Amino acid sequence: MIRVTVWNEFVQEQMDVKAGELFPGEENAQARQWMTERAKEIREVHHGAIHDTLKALLEEDEEIQVCHIATLEMEECGLTKDVLDDTDVLVWWAHIAHDKVPDEIAERVRDYVLRGMGFIALHSAHPSKPMQKLLGTSGTLQWREGDFCRVWNTCPTHPIAQGIPASFELDEEEMYGEFFDIPKPDDLVFISWYRGGEVFRSGCTWTRGYGKMFYFQPGHETNRSYFNENVRKIIRNAVKWAKPAMRVNELVCPNAAESPESKYQK
Amino acid sequence: MIRVTVWNEFVQEQMDVKAGELFPGEENAQARQWMTERAKEIREVHHGAIHDTLKALLEEDEEIQVCHIATLEMEECGLTKDVLDDTDVLVWWAHIAHDKVPDEIAERVRDYVLRGMGFIALHSAHPSKPMQKLLGTSGTLQWREGDFCRVWNTCPTHPIAQGIPASFELDEEEMYGEFFDIPKPDDLVFISWYRGGEVFRSGCTWTRGYGKMFYFQPGHETNRSYFNENVRKIIRNAVKWAKPAMRVNELVCPNAAESPESKYQK
Amino acid sequence: MIRVTVWNEFVQEQMDVKAGELFPGEENAQARQWMTERAKEIREVHHGAIHDTLKALLEEDEEIQVCHIATLEMEECGLTKDVLDDTDVLVWWAHIAHDKVPDEIAERVRDYVLRGMGFIALHSAHPSKPMQKLLGTSGTLQWREGDFCRVWNTCPTHPIAQGIPASFELDEEEMYGEFFDIPKPDDLVFISWYRGGEVFRSGCTWTRGYGKMFYFQPGHETNRSYFNENVRKIIRNAVKWAKPAMRVNELVCPNAAESPESKYQK
Amino acid sequence: MIRVTVWNEFVQEQMDVKAGELFPGEENAQARQWMTERAKEIREVHHGAIHDTLKALLEEDEEIQVCHIATLEMEECGLTKDVLDDTDVLVWWAHIAHDKVPDEIAERVRDYVLRGMGFIALHSAHPSKPMQKLLGTSGTLQWREGDFCRVWNTCPTHPIAQGIPASFELDEEEMYGEFFDIPKPDDLVFISWYRGGEVFRSGCTWTRGYGKMFYFQPGHETNRSYFNENVRKIIRNAVKWAKPAMRVNELVCPNAAESPESKYQK
Repeated sequence: MIRVTVWNEFVQEQMDVKAGELFPGEENAQARQWMTERAKEIREVHHGAIHDTLKALLEEDEEIQVCHIATLEMEECGLTKDVLDDTDVLVWWAHIAHDKVPDEIAERVRDYVLRGMGFIALHSAHPSKPMQKLLGTSGTLQWREGDFCRVWNTCPTHPIAQGIPASFELDEEEMYGEFFDIPKPDDLVFISWYRGGEVFRSGCTWTRGYGKMFYFQPGHETNRSYFNENVRKIIRNAVKWAKPAMRVNELVCPNAAESPESKYQK
Repeated sequence: MIRVTVWNEFVQEQMDVKAGELFPGEENAQARQWMTERAKEIREVHHGAIHDTLKALLEEDEEIQVCHIATLEMEECGLTKDVLDDTDVLVWWAHIAHDKVPDEIAERVRDYVLRGMGFIALHSAHPSKPMQKLLGTSGTLQWREGDFCRVWNTCPTHPIAQGIPASFELDEEEMYGEFFDIPKPDDLVFISWYRGGEVFRSGCTWTRGYGKMFYFQPGHETNRSYFNENVRKIIRNAVKWAKPAMRVNELVCPNAAESPESKYQK
Repeated sequence: MIRVTVWNEFVQEQMDVKAGELFPGEENAQARQWMTERAKEIREVHHGAIHDTLKALLEEDEEIQVCHIATLEMEECGLTKDVLDDTDVLVWWAHIAHDKVPDEIAERVRDYVLRGMGFIALHSAHPSKPMQKLLGTSGTLQWREGDFCRVWNTCPTHPIAQGIPASFELDEEEMYGEFFDIPKPDDLVFISWYRGGEVFRSGCTWTRGYGKMFYFQPGHETNRSYFNENVRKIIRNAVKWAKPAMRVNELVCPNAAESPESKYQK
Repeated sequence: MIRVTVWNEFVQEQMDVKAGELFPGEENAQARQWMTERAKEIREVHHGAIHDTLKALLEEDEEIQVCHIATLEMEECGLTKDVLDDTDVLVWWAHIAHDKVPDEIAERVRDYVLRGMGFIALHSAHPSKPMQKLLGTSGTLQWREGDFCRVWNTCPTHPIAQGIPASFELDEEEMYGEFFDIPKPDDLVFISWYRGGEVFRSGCTWTRGYGKMFYFQPGHETNRSYFNENVRKIIRNAVKWAKPAMRVNELVCPNAAESPESKYQK
């Protein structure tokens, strides 16, 4: 059984209630209005919150159990050490409140990944603190809402691509376009085509320390990408691929006072 | 002309004066004693400070000019925006005071690298804040002072390996051994052999954003590695390789409101 | 000065004369007819042969000199050892007669690349013998003539991308689409978008032995891609990038009878 | 169940009988004498042939079944299409008769790997025809018999490294040293240290087409490395890792006459 924690920012879904608190002041009035309207749309698409959708798609696989839902409003973002100790793979969805995640929590996530926990960053998590701290790069890209997307499978033998056809289509998705500022991926599993004219390295893996990471582009909050069977399968595949091979207790620099050869030299 | 800033922690060289301030308290008494003795040794090896040695070896190449020396005790660590704007490649030596570099300065260095500045991390810079923030990993390794090191050239056509033989030897160097927790290098230019029985990926390149990075293992403070002609040439080669191809003003996510294809659809 | 040899199959340009010889028999009658018509079209686009176009675009750079034109009909395909000894970078265009290149000549090209010569494979060279022998993979892809292509720059700091914008367009080019069976590129410099709905890793680098390789997709024989300023610059940049760092006389496995350490053990 | 075919050159084991046939003539007299003596030594170490040792170590894992032993002296080298169709992973040991493998058989192996079959190349298989044809490079290195080897685990989370400690030792192994002419590995799983002073990238993975490859250095014919528990486990791990994710019937370039977008444009 793979124990998964789904972290959802869970801000946009509640914006009719929370916009005033999170985006105060005159200068944010238009943003608050836009977000209030969008909140209802998101809840309709997801029959609740984005983490409900993610939990449901993950648990279609009998090997996966979503043990924890964690959100920004929880204490320690819901990512206490107890929760992370109980997590094999952390799935991260976030969009508009990246800077509200305390540095300490983001550093904790990085530490757990380096010590073996898997990490799946979805869609607008590209500038999230954990992803930035793990990759080093800015994650910048260009974007435009409301495009048509065709995802091409460029690594058909990769575990994450198993059962996925040569390409599949998403009727409406946010365009993310190159140049995408990421470190060279270990494997470039998917490249997306957008009808508006852009391409994007949309499925990328990296190893960091003892942990494995996957970034996957689809998942704009008001689009139905997470109800696409291929997208669902890819996320499940990614969780299974990112399952820890091993976990280490701490990352330290030991003094090898005695050299391996010293036993032969005596 | 390539403008280089050499950042040297410049703490150990002054330890007979500064140990009390930097490592106060009873619990650090032994460390202070050890560092006081070492300070003199370092100054003898380097005929002054480590940055003097680095400046001298860099300026043996007519294309390279060390425009700035920056140290921990300077305001903003000597790494003001004016200095970094005037820097093509930043060379970083540090050892015992990584945590004294303010996060803000380390983030600034990361930002300049992502926007194009070259970055050369030497020896004990492996757990330095800029390197951690750029690579994401812990940089942990095992170590032991006072070994013999043979550096093997595993990428003979790389610009950093030009003029370097198949292998060369350092009579005394600190052993750094695997497992070295780094992201997969773009190029693994050197692997070191230690007489005590270890190996180490000692010369590694990465690209981060618009900037290039190189980590190079030799350079223990009391050893004479920086007076080895091959080491000197490698560091100069690295600076020339890391010279910015371009620099960008900011890293942002532009809204491509108008798609490239829209002009054809009208 | 970089000495370039342009190898052009130079078959399609002469097909009104040569089709009978190269594609004999009843079963090839339709192919001969089609190729005869195309021959005239190609000669018009290129004001002669494809190697004329390539020579002209290369020599716009004062550092590049096309010292040799080599074609299939020449003795030893024009690739004698004398010619290759006089070649820094070999540019390869071929399409319909890959199997007519003798294995011995393809092996010779591979040997020269492994010993340091640069190699630029253009467009339909993807299943050419030298590229297959150097990469190991099949180079298979999907294709369709007559699409619109937008080339995205996914590695803006790479030497081959210098002076190239974030994207540029080719009004008519043959679509090459994923899955492209190639080894993981060292650098993925360009990804192409096609209006028909495909993506393609269209600019890829590899290192093989002491030599550097670049594959670049544009260049269908009847399209005008080689008259596009960005395409022309990319090919020149690639030649300059692939210039040998060094050349070795032979690739052998020497017996290191005396170990490096033996001198210390006496 | 993973079906493995072990290909063993099986020449050196029989050299007291076969040297005259394989290495005829005056100029090979000394080689024949040396090989005759060595034949007996090899048979003693392996209690028979090298393929006996490999079969035994592989079948310690219940998931692995060695379905076929194939050798140079068999018709088609024992690698008929029927055998390869019945093979998930091909293990290749060879040393002194690489050139006796017909090109057609080596090309057949390459074709099966590109279409999904796993391939494990052991020790002196580095210049074997299948490895050369799959990697493109020369595989050259330096060597010396009779050294002590310590293998370092540089990729502890890789499937091939599972259950393997940070390092392990081989009391006697042939030294293989850098520069090793290989394409940049997908993963560099092991680096070896030799007491004589060299290092070697001794465990490397690559993907070629739909197939996975692993090269592993230990296995000199007269040494007992294949009786080391870590070596045995690594080879079993490699076979399990290289098990085909999928197999394809042929590698072709289909004409995508109808574009994916055409259905939307009607």
